[in-house]
Amino acid sequence: MPLLDPIESPAARALNTNGKAPALLVCEHASRFIPAALDELGLTATAALSHAAWDIGARDLAIELMGALDAPLVLSRVSRLVYDCNRPPDAKGAIPSRSEAFEVPGNSELTTEERNRRVQEIYNPFQRLLSATLDARPTPPVLITIHSFTPVYHGRRRDVELGILHDADDRAARILLKAASGSGLKTALNQPYSAADGVTHTLREHGLKRGLPNVMIEIRNDLLDSPGGITRMTGLLAPMLQATISELVPQEVQT
Amino acid sequence: MPLLDPIESPAARALNTNGKAPALLVCEHASRFIPAALDELGLTATAALSHAAWDIGARDLAIELMGALDAPLVLSRVSRLVYDCNRPPDAKGAIPSRSEAFEVPGNSELTTEERNRRVQEIYNPFQRLLSATLDARPTPPVLITIHSFTPVYHGRRRDVELGILHDADDRAARILLKAASGSGLKTALNQPYSAADGVTHTLREHGLKRGLPNVMIEIRNDLLDSPGGITRMTGLLAPMLQATISELVPQEVQT
Repeated sequence: MPLLDPIESPAARALNTNGKAPALLVCEHASRFIPAALDELGLTATAALSHAAWDIGARDLAIELMGALDAPLVLSRVSRLVYDCNRPPDAKGAIPSRSEAFEVPGNSELTTEERNRRVQEIYNPFQRLLSATLDARPTPPVLITIHSFTPVYHGRRRDVELGILHDADDRAARILLKAASGSGLKTALNQPYSAADGVTHTLREHGLKRGLPNVMIEIRNDLLDSPGGITRMTGLLAPMLQATISELVPQEVQT
Repeated sequence: MPLLDPIESPAARALNTNGKAPALLVCEHASRFIPAALDELGLTATAALSHAAWDIGARDLAIELMGALDAPLVLSRVSRLVYDCNRPPDAKGAIPSRSEAFEVPGNSELTTEERNRRVQEIYNPFQRLLSATLDARPTPPVLITIHSFTPVYHGRRRDVELGILHDADDRAARILLKAASGSGLKTALNQPYSAADGVTHTLREHGLKRGLPNVMIEIRNDLLDSPGGITRMTGLLAPMLQATISELVPQEVQT
């Protein structure tokens, strides 16, 4: 029996693949869907709805940005508690048995076969789809990953509203940071996480290895918890991203 | 002052406009967003979250179908309580002052100028975008509108799960009805609404006038209220729609 039945497949989707912008949006934590075969991973209802299961609002924001920029978007269709597509298979957090305050009973004591099945059915198809989508772009794009974070983590309030994260290549992050300066958003570089926390797997695998400019965006999720919030953040972020893309891929280079 | 400020604009979006399928998806009731200038229309919190404000789950389903079929999608970004884009400006329900159980204080006693502004800033841009998206299709597409309905209406339970609605042209509806027969869904033609209820404005304006095959889909919204529901309904509907499109637009006609 596959983890995802035919009606639940595929594990990932690429949207607007013929979008004109020389950019690719990625949302690894777009879904809180748990395949029926996994019996909700034994989660409490609270945990299954929480930021532990997905990045609240990130999917809606990514889809809006896809429309505003006319960029393609690759997104996961499965909860990160089943497999976190922004983690390599050997990372401890790839299939977490605990996430912040929440236990994940369905992930404890997995056999090697069960772990491999998650990798083969979720991580591998996501990676292949992302690679194929990048291969098909006519111009080398700017890689932009869209995330959200919880306003309170382990009891501590987070003041930053927009986090701009980079790995070894900080070109896109520096330009975006400058573009964000007039937005009124409390913006910070490499907060609330940084590459040292192991959160830049997609940037490394698909940005650095291809030499593409790349950046990870983290929005505090209380800014994305209503249609008004999604609309407002789209209106603020789209011009910043547009400016970043234009500076990194001048018009005359675009095909 | 415009109704939608620059950060909140535009009123509608066309996604995946270069999608390959000879179909166009439309979701007129995709959003429960109310522009800040309208002060939540005086709605209670319950009303603002309810099916009165939008078609619960329809946007997520439409986006999933867009990906599954590789079809373009035109969606509204504003609540139907601000302006219902599936109603002509002279319809009573275009800017309702009451919706099922809910009063809409912000819509009562509107001046002609206020009504005109809603038409000009929401209805007209939506119509123009839909027309332009149809104009740009290389092959005459099948027009498919995606809606959801509440399981209980005026105290009465509704048993139908999938409603297939048509106006004067029933070609797509008949084929889809046949395709739905093996799905296990309780399916009915012209339920829980029909053209007589004034719900086929988009089909008439953009389907009949152009001679395009067209159909309106209504899903009971308790089937769309979770990621599992959206995933499952996408898995069931995508092959039915695919079969319908293929029968109406044979491969050799597609460019």
